Formats: sequence, C-alpha cells, structure tokens
Amino acid sequence: MTQRYKNVYVQDTSTVSGPYEKKGPLGKYFDKSYDDLYNNEKTWEQAEVRLLKDSFDILLNKVHLKKENVDLVISGDLLNQITSSCYAVEPLKIPFLGIYSACATSMEGVIIGANFVESGQAEKVICATSSHNMGSEKQFRNPTEYGAPKPSTATFTATGGASLLLSNEKSDVRVESSTIGIIQDLGQTDPLHMGAVMAPAAADTIYRHLTDLKRDVNYYDMILTGDLGVYGKEILIDYMKTEYGIDLQGNYNDCGTMLYNLADQKEVLAGGSGPVCSALVNYGYIYKLLKKKTVKRVLFVTTGALFSPTFAYQHQSILSIAHAVSWEVVE
Amino acid sequence: MTQRYKNVYVQDTSTVSGPYEKKGPLGKYFDKSYDDLYNNEKTWEQAEVRLLKDSFDILLNKVHLKKENVDLVISGDLLNQITSSCYAVEPLKIPFLGIYSACATSMEGVIIGANFVESGQAEKVICATSSHNMGSEKQFRNPTEYGAPKPSTATFTATGGASLLLSNEKSDVRVESSTIGIIQDLGQTDPLHMGAVMAPAAADTIYRHLTDLKRDVNYYDMILTGDLGVYGKEILIDYMKTEYGIDLQGNYNDCGTMLYNLADQKEVLAGGSGPVCSALVNYGYIYKLLKKKTVKRVLFVTTGALFSPTFAYQHQSILSIAHAVSWEVVE
Repeated sequence: MTQRYKNVYVQDTSTVSGPYEKKGPLGKYFDKSYDDLYNNEKTWEQAEVRLLKDSFDILLNKVHLKKENVDLVISGDLLNQITSSCYAVEPLKIPFLGIYSACATSMEGVIIGANFVESGQAEKVICATSSHNMGSEKQFRNPTEYGAPKPSTATFTATGGASLLLSNEKSDVRVESSTIGIIQDLGQTDPLHMGAVMAPAAADTIYRHLTDLKRDVNYYDMILTGDLGVYGKEILIDYMKTEYGIDLQGNYNDCGTMLYNLADQKEVLAGGSGPVCSALVNYGYIYKLLKKKTVKRVLFVTTGALFSPTFAYQHQSILSIAHAVSWEVVE
Repeated sequence: MTQRYKNVYVQDTSTVSGPYEKKGPLGKYFDKSYDDLYNNEKTWEQAEVRLLKDSFDILLNKVHLKKENVDLVISGDLLNQITSSCYAVEPLKIPFLGIYSACATSMEGVIIGANFVESGQAEKVICATSSHNMGSEKQFRNPTEYGAPKPSTATFTATGGASLLLSNEKSDVRVESSTIGIIQDLGQTDPLHMGAVMAPAAADTIYRHLTDLKRDVNYYDMILTGDLGVYGKEILIDYMKTEYGIDLQGNYNDCGTMLYNLADQKEVLAGGSGPVCSALVNYGYIYKLLKKKTVKRVLFVTTGALFSPTFAYQHQSILSIAHAVSWEVVE
C-alpha cells in the first residue's frame, strides 16, 4: 500500500546516542551523546527511557514548542510491551499511540503520523523510537554475562533515542510518499543473521514502492535500508537484481553499515541494528544532507525482524517487514 | 485529541473465543469457540495465533472478500513483540501496522484504521487483537504451575481473537468519532489490581471526549469501558463523579464484568481482562445490538495498563491509557 502526501513536512529531528555511536563516523551529527551505557540511570531500561526523554526535550526546544502544543506522539521500541516509549512519553501528557515493527518502527511511526497530518486530524505529531544495546542483549540474546561468542553475521543493537516533528507547516523537507510493509516469511530461523532474514522484506517493499509510483530506482538520490548489516546489504543487492532486475548499487547504502567504523569497532560485527540505528543515521545525518540540498530525494526503508525468544524456542521461523518513506527537499 | 469521521463504516466483525468465554453469558454471540485452551495447537502462544487466524478467516468470509482485496491490517496483542499478531497476519500477505496499547489495543487500531479510511489512503482495513489466558499468565504473572493464590482484585485474561473490517462503503454502523488516550501515572504499583490503575485513564479520556465534542454523558445509549473489572468499575464511577461531576451510572458498564458469569465462574475473580476481553464483548455482542438498533450510540473506552515485569521489578509505577471510539447506527 503506497500513499502520497501533499502537506506533510519535517519540522526538525533530534538524536541522542550512547558511547559506541558517538565514536562512529556519524558521532558528530548527534545532538547529544552519553559516555557510558547507564547515562546516570540505575538500569539499562531506565537509561533507554532517559535517551528518549532527552530526545523529546531537545526536539521541543529546537522547534520552539511547548509540549502542550503537540497533538500526538507515536512511538515504539524493542523492549517488551514497548515500555521505553510508554515511560518516556508519560511526562509529556500528550495523546499517545504505541507501535511496534521491531527495527522498522521509526518509519511505521512516520507513516501513521503523516496520515494524521495529511488528513488534518492532527497538526503537530512527534514520531519517535529508541533502543539500548544492553537492554536488548539482556532481553533477546544470550545472558550477556556469559560472554558467549557470536558469529560475524550478528549485529550490534544501537543505543539512543531519536524523534522528529511532523506538521503541515511548510519547511525545507517534506514527506512525499510511503509504502507499508507486508510480512515476509522465508523460513529462516537464525536470530544471529538478521540481515538474511530482513533483506527479502526490504526487497519486496522497495519493489512495490517503485512499481506503485512508476519510478525508476534512480529517481532517488539515496535509498537507505535500516540495519541489514554488511552481509544483509550484499544479500539485498543480489536479491533485487535476481528477483526484480533492479540494480541498487549506485545510490544504495544500509544504515547498519554506516553508524559505526566497522574496521575499528570490531564489537559491532556485521553492523548496527535496533530501531534507533536507522533513526540515528536518518534523522542525525541524512536529514542534514537534505537540509543542505546535498541530496534531494531519499527513500528510507527501515527493516524489522518480527519474532520473540518464545517463538524462536518453539521453532517458528523469523518473520520480517520493511516500511518505506520518501523524503524530499522542498524547492 | 478528538477526531470526527464522515465516511468510516464497520462492515462486519468476527469473534473467536476460548472455553471460559463460551461458558459466559455472551458465549452464544461469538462466531466460534474452542473447548480447551490449546485448540489443537502445541503451545499456548500458537493457540493464540490460531484464534486470530480463525477470526481473519471468518471475517473475510462474512464480508465476501478475498484477502488480496484488503488494503491494510492493523493488529496488536499482549505477547512480547506482539508475536500473535505478526504470525497470524503473515499468511494474509497484506500490508501490516503493528500496534500496542495493552488492553486498549482494539480501539487504538480502530482509530488508526479510521484515519486511513477517512483520508482515502485505504479503502478496506482490518483491525484486530487477541489474547490468551495461559499465554499471558506465563508471561506476566506468577509461574502458573505454582498455583499461587491471587487477591480478589485480580482479573482473568480472556482467550480469543477478534477483528473487524472498516471501509468507506455505507453500512448499518459507522465510526463517528474518537479520542486518543493520554498516559496516566497515579503512582500505583500493584499488578494484581489493574482496575485501580486504569480507571483514571478511562476517566480522563471520557472527560476529554465529552468536553471536546460538547456532549452530555447521556448523549450515549451506552458507555463501555474495556476491562476495569468489578472494583475498577466502582472506582471509575466514583472518580468521574468526584473529579468531573459526571454521573456514569445510567448508561455505563464495563466489559470485564460482562464477559463472564461472575457469580459462577469464580476463577475470573474481579472479571475479564486482556485486549480481546473488550473486543469479544464489543464486536460479538454490542455490535449486534447496534445492528438491531437496540442501542444507537455507543462509546467504547478500552483501557490498558502500560508496564512490563522488568519495569515492575525496578519499582516503576504502572502507567495506564484509554482510547475512546464512538460508533453509531446509520439511520
């Protein structure tokens, strides 16, 4: 399902990161970064709440709005029952819609928010997401204390909070169109190779987006997938070519391979992941390229793996989804 | 935030229940019920997926639609990473938006779906939710094998899957307006007294809904909260009167007190809960009253407790939210 918008603008974005992201090549683009994973909180979960709260504060300050002048907040995250979002949004006292698409969450929020702004049901909508490396490790993977080795295909959940404000007031960057993802099941079961799980979802969404809008892949200055990592990125390039005859190489990159210095930061293995990985890259770095008109048309394709440890233990395959949103410079 | 709609209609609903719900006073209104909690699946989680899949099949059959003619599915549930929804939606191959508002999920879905239909971005949208008694017990509460006693204020998570189809084609019942919830934090920490946690959220949403639309409480033939249970219901009636001077008693009831025979089904304690509790009552029973014009204006106020065991262990208070949607008979 592909939607087009006439009156949806990005007013500004806000990005807060953890220490690993700060040390990466895009570290200088974030509004705020913490030097450790606890950022003055007592637990990893409360640290994630803090990252998202900080992001809201910075965003409201940037757009010169008091919280009571925002109509709606849409947010989701990886923690069970999207608790980071709920506890970070509560002090705002703004109507709230909780969402979940794993690492595709940021663009699901933008799609729902854009619909509210386009239809006139809301004027100012905050869309947000967060993740925390150790919060995710604790919840999803091996008990981290055991130091179990991981394969090179595993990714590293990014730590941070990111948000943006959509409204119908004209600005430099607008939300031009979007395509909602269809869940894919290719029977894959390896939670330490999410790039392989998610690449087919990205391919399906990119193909439907281009087809629905009768666009060539070169319509976009950049196409950015959200955290496939180095192996998933190669799989997507191959898959797009063999399945759909589309050559992604010229204008394509993956946020998971951009957030860290893969050569130096060995701990990230195949790259970054987590819903805030693509949000940090897109809202922190790419948004600034759009503001400077270095690029004019960008397609964000956030990718998410839909599963839980419970379903993995029950030998269910890992599902995936990708949501795409096109942003363009307002001339 | 309150929205009004001109072109959003409920085409039909579908309800599938477990055995406890079948034995309740509304059992005869459900489209299908299972006699045990496994319903031919190997695990409680797979059983929940099956309930929701059945609900989709029954709904598509009722509205004479093939799945490929539906534009969008919006669904959420209580399982970590809303896995019941993801795994039940996957075979449909329809664009999907995952949502989470705990037991307020059904009306969050209707609000987002109604916005897509009203704006013309989608023509046919399925909104769905599910829950499973033992799946929830296993995930949220005491290890169920221990048989730990519970206080009388505890509620009983309903088992079932429920869905509806929204479209812009005129039908007997329309979605007239909605109010998105604001997260409430009254500092409560007892996960076995959710009625007390959620009543203030219901009160805030009902008050804002009536105020935004300049309506008297008697505008509605029925106001139904979603699973406060017997104690929460009394708290809400008191709270509405003392905080807002609004007398709810004439036209008010709570879905949690309606789903079971509280006098006979002692195991349900203070009543039903879980996102499908209110969906079974509203889509199974109240929708039929609207179709027969026994009632003409109903306000559904689904209530959700936003927390996780992790946050409860960290001594965080339990947050709550309520989303309200008004349905009315098309004359």
